[in-house]
Amino acid sequence: MSTSNDPLVIFTPSGKRGNFPVGTPILTAARQLGVDLDSVCGGRGICSKCQVQPSYGEFSKHGVTVEDDALTEWNSVEERYKSKRGMIDGRRLGCQAAVQGDVVIDVPPESQVHKQVVRKRAEARDITMNPSTKLFYVEVQEPDMHDPSGDLERLVAALRKDWELPELEVDFSVLGYLQQALRKGEWKVTCAVHLGDDYVSPRIVHVWSGYYEGSIYGMAVDLGSTTIAAHLCDLQTGEVIASTGIMNPQIRFGEDLMSRVSYSMMNDNGAAEMTLAVRNGMNALFVQACAEAQIDPAEIMDAVFVCNPVMHHLFLGIDPFELGQAPFALATSDAVSTRAKNLDLKVHPAARVYLLPCIAGHVGADAAAVALSEAPDKSEDLVLVVDVGTNAEILLGNKDKVLACSSPTGPAFEGAQISSGQRAAPGAIERVEIDPVTKEPRFRVIGSDMWSDEIGFAESILSSGITGICGSGIIEMVAEMRIAGIVDGPGLIGSPEQTGTDRCFLDGRTHSYLVWDGTANGGPKITVTNRDIREIQMAKAALYSGARLLMDKFDVDVVDRIVLAGAFGAHISPKHATILGMIPDCDLDKVTSAGNAAGTGARIALLNVEARSDIEETVRKIHKIETAIEPRFQEHFVNASAIPNSVEKFPILESIVPLPDVNFNTGGDNDGGAGGGRRRRRRG
Amino acid sequence: MSTSNDPLVIFTPSGKRGNFPVGTPILTAARQLGVDLDSVCGGRGICSKCQVQPSYGEFSKHGVTVEDDALTEWNSVEERYKSKRGMIDGRRLGCQAAVQGDVVIDVPPESQVHKQVVRKRAEARDITMNPSTKLFYVEVQEPDMHDPSGDLERLVAALRKDWELPELEVDFSVLGYLQQALRKGEWKVTCAVHLGDDYVSPRIVHVWSGYYEGSIYGMAVDLGSTTIAAHLCDLQTGEVIASTGIMNPQIRFGEDLMSRVSYSMMNDNGAAEMTLAVRNGMNALFVQACAEAQIDPAEIMDAVFVCNPVMHHLFLGIDPFELGQAPFALATSDAVSTRAKNLDLKVHPAARVYLLPCIAGHVGADAAAVALSEAPDKSEDLVLVVDVGTNAEILLGNKDKVLACSSPTGPAFEGAQISSGQRAAPGAIERVEIDPVTKEPRFRVIGSDMWSDEIGFAESILSSGITGICGSGIIEMVAEMRIAGIVDGPGLIGSPEQTGTDRCFLDGRTHSYLVWDGTANGGPKITVTNRDIREIQMAKAALYSGARLLMDKFDVDVVDRIVLAGAFGAHISPKHATILGMIPDCDLDKVTSAGNAAGTGARIALLNVEARSDIEETVRKIHKIETAIEPRFQEHFVNASAIPNSVEKFPILESIVPLPDVNFNTGGDNDGGAGGGRRRRRRG
Repeated sequence: MSTSNDPLVIFTPSGKRGNFPVGTPILTAARQLGVDLDSVCGGRGICSKCQVQPSYGEFSKHGVTVEDDALTEWNSVEERYKSKRGMIDGRRLGCQAAVQGDVVIDVPPESQVHKQVVRKRAEARDITMNPSTKLFYVEVQEPDMHDPSGDLERLVAALRKDWELPELEVDFSVLGYLQQALRKGEWKVTCAVHLGDDYVSPRIVHVWSGYYEGSIYGMAVDLGSTTIAAHLCDLQTGEVIASTGIMNPQIRFGEDLMSRVSYSMMNDNGAAEMTLAVRNGMNALFVQACAEAQIDPAEIMDAVFVCNPVMHHLFLGIDPFELGQAPFALATSDAVSTRAKNLDLKVHPAARVYLLPCIAGHVGADAAAVALSEAPDKSEDLVLVVDVGTNAEILLGNKDKVLACSSPTGPAFEGAQISSGQRAAPGAIERVEIDPVTKEPRFRVIGSDMWSDEIGFAESILSSGITGICGSGIIEMVAEMRIAGIVDGPGLIGSPEQTGTDRCFLDGRTHSYLVWDGTANGGPKITVTNRDIREIQMAKAALYSGARLLMDKFDVDVVDRIVLAGAFGAHISPKHATILGMIPDCDLDKVTSAGNAAGTGARIALLNVEARSDIEETVRKIHKIETAIEPRFQEHFVNASAIPNSVEKFPILESIVPLPDVNFNTGGDNDGGAGGGRRRRRRG
Repeated sequence: MSTSNDPLVIFTPSGKRGNFPVGTPILTAARQLGVDLDSVCGGRGICSKCQVQPSYGEFSKHGVTVEDDALTEWNSVEERYKSKRGMIDGRRLGCQAAVQGDVVIDVPPESQVHKQVVRKRAEARDITMNPSTKLFYVEVQEPDMHDPSGDLERLVAALRKDWELPELEVDFSVLGYLQQALRKGEWKVTCAVHLGDDYVSPRIVHVWSGYYEGSIYGMAVDLGSTTIAAHLCDLQTGEVIASTGIMNPQIRFGEDLMSRVSYSMMNDNGAAEMTLAVRNGMNALFVQACAEAQIDPAEIMDAVFVCNPVMHHLFLGIDPFELGQAPFALATSDAVSTRAKNLDLKVHPAARVYLLPCIAGHVGADAAAVALSEAPDKSEDLVLVVDVGTNAEILLGNKDKVLACSSPTGPAFEGAQISSGQRAAPGAIERVEIDPVTKEPRFRVIGSDMWSDEIGFAESILSSGITGICGSGIIEMVAEMRIAGIVDGPGLIGSPEQTGTDRCFLDGRTHSYLVWDGTANGGPKITVTNRDIREIQMAKAALYSGARLLMDKFDVDVVDRIVLAGAFGAHISPKHATILGMIPDCDLDKVTSAGNAAGTGARIALLNVEARSDIEETVRKIHKIETAIEPRFQEHFVNASAIPNSVEKFPILESIVPLPDVNFNTGGDNDGGAGGGRRRRRRG
């Protein structure tokens, strides 16, 4: 019931309501009630961002009846806009339609300032639009000899008055063209204002003459040791308008992180060379993304980067020397917010960049981004988040506490240091099954939907051939070899006699298993060697030990769910990972893939500045565990090399598949096993 | 009387006192009482900035008797410092000497944080040291794998803890070398922190390993249309360690401001060319000053610039186009605080620059600097401050109100557009007397102490010769010609018959006066033409009219005192200026010279950041009068061309010298007079 004689205005979906005098524009009513209704032009009927959908009829829930004439009539501004740009029937411009009687107004999602960017995964949280840089249209007072204030000062006054912005600075790059822009626009301009983190020092970063019809853009970048992947996003809608990636050009200085740190130690100018390489690569990537989206790189006003600590330092121009030795001191661990210019990025001259905070010397901004995307700190149940790459970053926690560590898995999971290993690309074996009776393999390769024993398979792979085994493929391969009794618990491949198949053959002092022989057609001979098994054993032992160490610290023996992050994580079969003993025991349906969670975290930070302070706060609260100084990590590692390391620790295995009780050690294990002294520390 | 049993500590000269437990270091006591006692090392006995002078004996004023053992004994830290660096006998280090009994401690001026930089002029206010950038020594916690914070974060924590600094940012340029600096200094470093304007966003701008023995420097620059003058100052002591100047390299684009604005209008890239020229000139000047002081330009961390609006815009890279036409809109009128990098200055990579605010489109940051130096807004009596250059900037006010305007005097006062005019340089006539009976001149030239009729004069000027008349010389010349009856009130030079001297000769359609004929020795013939008289008449009329307009606005007919600023102002003879009618009527002993007040204002703003907000506030309060739109300015101008324009308006003249009542107009004033339609608007 209204306490006033003025008409009642009810906004949906917010439910906010209030009485307003006849003649109050809907936009004004929305602002006064704090309803989230967008506007760039400040109610001048130019931008059309304030479109609303009035409803007529009776609303029992709200106890009002809305007459047809509850709003002022459709006017010429609305007609002009509709005829020029089109508008859904029944919609009105909130700045034009004014209150005449009680009315119910729906604010459609696209008219909300804080639009939601819906993510595909059901368990993932949506992104609320709140970018660092926003557009504001203003009309500026003309200069007057009686009041000799500068053009800039009158622009700032208009922005502050119309938009209730705090004290504003101006980027130096604007000064040179400001006077022309104001005059060309006849004192009407659109400004891009970088509102800063928490509106601390907002700054005008660009001025367009008149109402600017275009948009402004941002880059969310996952800077990996091997690849750099970027999403180009519209900072007004949140839409990804281009996604692209390139190899990290630093690869020529070393495949893995430690070899890059070594390169910088061994070469006077090594770090600077790598900094130059990655920045050049970044610019090339930006050009590529902009070409795809048909925008100018100068329209990019913000960029967010996530990366491991070594990439972080090299990108910022810091020698990663200290990260190569204990105590692995970061030059800076907090989030870095600086000008894109400082990183030589060829984007808008006033563009900003933001790097998420690093969690520790081994657990970088990429892990922070995973934490932002997967939000273990907001989870009711205990979740283990594993980002599998050259290094595995591991998070374990719930809303009470989050632990983090990094584990040196090495590059085996990416197909590197595996005899027939290769990157995930067409031609790579990615799925494997081995018949436990015949020991014959069937497989699928990237680029084809068919299994190798299906009719038409050969034709389906003509363009790529069969070239090797990728990271997820090698995991399935080793797990299937174990199920088929080709590999024993300690990790030895059996002889032809022991396994009953000629696919096992003596290869040096140990045996190998032949997966595919393409030599007749000039192709490769794809085998799994015992050394490959050892590499996988070490990698999975490192991953498992890291997770297990965090569980010890949490004082739990099981986790409620496991999230596998990373592009690789997206392709791991939970069943095979469990058979291998890569991940702790967990119901298979509680093991999910988050895809490129680090990249998603970058996108969240790009589109919502509050998420930045949020993750900074979270990272401050995360307990960091340094595996290198934890004796229990070593202990877990030594005990974790068997496949699986212990059936008792994996009761879930019983429900998956029976594992044959074979032992191929005939007294002279020439390979020495994986759990012993050969453990190397790898990073990245 | 002490209310505590603890010893009483009294600091002089502040008089602050308190009781402190036995063993309290004097530095600690001083800090707790808010006594201004310096320290860079934070009480570690390294920097010696906290030297104090204890006094012993009886102090009837304070009612205490100080025993010889009122402080702890001279210790090894003090001994080491004294033997290495020397220290005045009787002095102690405040951080080492601790309280044992009642004591009186004198803080010598050089131990105060806010040292006073004493200015030579009695009426000028001293400068209190409070620079934007200060040094802080800290010991940083070493990295620890159990607490994986970054090196920067531990440095910031140490600075905040030891020095109670607010949230600190770091300049991007520091990140690259921070880790090395910390390790080389064994976790002891000295930081230069830019505290910002009012501590808004303090920022670490440099880090030195260990205790930094050196100082940091700043530049105070008066960027004039003709010359650029700079003082290189020590930001710790306030001392000027080098003063140097160069011609503004923009001169090749035009002598005066309007011709430079025209150059930018007529040439596509004109403004950019002039921007490049002045920035290159600035860098050359900085190199010159640093060479003189034997420091590295990279040690310059701050610079303050004062200049007129056209120079201001061109230096900032803004086309001055709008300043060339009504309404003379500035691109920005507020103070500009930005990075030196943005102006391509080759100084410290994180150095800041500050430009004082402009008062109006014709009244620039140079006038604001004069206001800062001469402080009319703090004056009890009504003061007229005139900065005489190509343009005259005029301030009139007292502590209640200040008015400002600019008057287009043109370059005549600088010797330009005068037939025998030249800049003030050796060989230029600067002082003149003309015998009223013989009409013979005697004069002095720059570079010699002798008058031209003294024996030995010819020898004293051998190296320069006599080359022309400088600005202050031409003023004396015209005034003396008027006193001697060679020029009449309206400004006509008499014929030989009318004046009774052959030095007056027909020169075209009017007469000229021969000052010096050096042709026999290959030198110049120096004359004053009637056109020269007209130029001076217009210049002085413009100056007088501006001052008079402000007096009208203030509703006064007399001012209490007049300050002549500018290098030229320093050489003007008040008597001759009054005879000429340049300045309003005022007791001659109330007319003083402030020297380069704009440059002094720049130095104040460099050494004291509070002075910056102070002048910004003052400028906001100054009432700006635009002479171009004030009908009364035109009126005053028309009436001000006579020499003097009206004896009634200058009662002071009667006490100076009688002016002959001559009139050389014989009915055909071919020159048309000065007060009419020939008035041009000039700028600069």
